[in-house]
Amino acid sequence: MKAEFINPFLTSLMNVLSTMSSIQLTPKKPMLKKGAEAKGDVSGLIGLTAPNLKGSLSVTFEKKLALMTMKKMVGEMHQTIDADVIDMVGEITNMVAGGAKRLLSEQGFDFDMATPIVVSGENHTIRHQSKDKVVLIPLSSDYGHVFLEISFE
Amino acid sequence: MKAEFINPFLTSLMNVLSTMSSIQLTPKKPMLKKGAEAKGDVSGLIGLTAPNLKGSLSVTFEKKLALMTMKKMVGEMHQTIDADVIDMVGEITNMVAGGAKRLLSEQGFDFDMATPIVVSGENHTIRHQSKDKVVLIPLSSDYGHVFLEISFE
Repeated sequence: MKAEFINPFLTSLMNVLSTMSSIQLTPKKPMLKKGAEAKGDVSGLIGLTAPNLKGSLSVTFEKKLALMTMKKMVGEMHQTIDADVIDMVGEITNMVAGGAKRLLSEQGFDFDMATPIVVSGENHTIRHQSKDKVVLIPLSSDYGHVFLEISFE
Repeated sequence: MKAEFINPFLTSLMNVLSTMSSIQLTPKKPMLKKGAEAKGDVSGLIGLTAPNLKGSLSVTFEKKLALMTMKKMVGEMHQTIDADVIDMVGEITNMVAGGAKRLLSEQGFDFDMATPIVVSGENHTIRHQSKDKVVLIPLSSDYGHVFLEISFE
């Protein structure tokens, strides 16, 4: 999997959080995910298809960052990962994939997006079942971490 | 969402479990999912795209049923939802979607499948972010439940 497939997703995630919630994310070193190390409390997942390629994207939030993103977007502090927070994570995931789709389309690479699914549950782990490698990029903020994972095969 | 979109996924899930592990599933009454009620311990998720439609499929296992399916498929009893069990759930999810794809293709409806993602974590919940309704079908077995959820929009 090439860097030019990864960077648009990273750029898009940083743009979406910054635009929607004024939260600045600092990307850490990308890694090739071997186990299911990125633990989080709420994750948005989306499937991606293209004529000769398929893949998946996940955006996993630590609880505190998910709740602060919600607060900064709508002005309300939710105490738990409730239905509103879940829907917000789904919407953010959709925007991240949509932003990357536009960026990649400009480079002549088009893909289709499935509908997002949001998983909630403390300390859940995610494993992308791609035959190719999975790239995991942790990003930090003032309110905790978000983990971006992308896989294409 | 029409029944003719749902039934091929249900048939395919029952066929896959029966063929791969000789476990017979009994479907319960389908319901329109309102909250995120189906709790399970390991879920396979896959995104679906078609020219005018997109959707998502999830197959959520209770722990005991996941471990028994593994045992009946490979002869080994795993004690926890480890990497092998996770990969098995991913493979089953892929086979369920692939079987439904063949059945729907015979009816003239073609869709593309993304790569599966498997989520593990006790008592996690799933919320499909489709604008249309989500159909949830619980299925029972001698070893616990599996929950099939499908959404198209």
